[in-house]
Amino acid sequence: MRNDLGAKPMLYPMPVLILGTYDENGVPNAMNAAWGGISDFEEITVSISAGHKTAANVLKTKAFTVSPADVKNLVAADFVGVVSGNKEPDKIKKTGWTVAKSEKVNAPIFNELPLTLECEMISYDPGTDRLVGKIVNVSADESILTGGKIDLTKFCPICYDPSEHGYYTMGERVGNAFADGKQLQ
Amino acid sequence: MRNDLGAKPMLYPMPVLILGTYDENGVPNAMNAAWGGISDFEEITVSISAGHKTAANVLKTKAFTVSPADVKNLVAADFVGVVSGNKEPDKIKKTGWTVAKSEKVNAPIFNELPLTLECEMISYDPGTDRLVGKIVNVSADESILTGGKIDLTKFCPICYDPSEHGYYTMGERVGNAFADGKQLQ
Repeated sequence: MRNDLGAKPMLYPMPVLILGTYDENGVPNAMNAAWGGISDFEEITVSISAGHKTAANVLKTKAFTVSPADVKNLVAADFVGVVSGNKEPDKIKKTGWTVAKSEKVNAPIFNELPLTLECEMISYDPGTDRLVGKIVNVSADESILTGGKIDLTKFCPICYDPSEHGYYTMGERVGNAFADGKQLQ
Repeated sequence: MRNDLGAKPMLYPMPVLILGTYDENGVPNAMNAAWGGISDFEEITVSISAGHKTAANVLKTKAFTVSPADVKNLVAADFVGVVSGNKEPDKIKKTGWTVAKSEKVNAPIFNELPLTLECEMISYDPGTDRLVGKIVNVSADESILTGGKIDLTKFCPICYDPSEHGYYTMGERVGNAFADGKQLQ
């Protein structure tokens, strides 16, 4: 028996995306977005309503970074979703994050967030809230790599539950993509 | 020290989205897509290249369903990503899934997948691969609900690791969204 829950954004897992941008004076901002995902091999799409500081910034700089939040940075990642960069000038200072400018795009990398997609804006439509970015580079802190690849025993990204507003770890490995299904062929 | 990994779709967590469509004769198809996400309150965007049976179907029916894969259905979910509906007429039969037509849109619900977003096509652009759908309803099997809400002690969606091609559970709850960050205010 199925129940109707209505028209809601109930997807699982949802990411916790930290968007980094600069304003016109080079002041960094960060915000937390759950509505987004990869939309092509070198492309990411995120929904950002026009009132956000991030929207104003990206229209000026044509660039942004996306870092998946991890367990170590959970409190600061939630904080940048609770507080607006339009109202809190010390937003980044309060996170404790240190900032380095991306070498690839005009957007900040938060050094404490170990994985970052560095993106050039392809388009942003304030009508649909749709921000599309070309992934120019992915940079990863050595601390989360093994043999040059991302290692989920070292990197602990968090998932968002849109129903109960919880943050979850990624748990145990339970299968192999492009492999386990072959037994049904 | 950060390492450059290049321009790649390295997001965490990534979903495992099972897209359901009908062809012009009402024959159901399913495919597995990891590139997608919520793009507005009642909207989902998924990247589907034009050669897929799903792309041809959605252009005809203007509708599709999206069900997040779970642990119970991992093998069948991977199978529908390995095998093309253009080549395997018995694709759905081999999954073991039973099909019910959505009451809301012209697309199939796979009864064994306990959570389904029922969507009307807003647009599909074969040039960019971008399929945008309006979420008309979310239906959930009673077995994953507690008090009418999705309960992650009952529903076990899987996450995709784009680096090592693994499937993972969602693990333990480690925080509360719109709450934990307030301590930094």
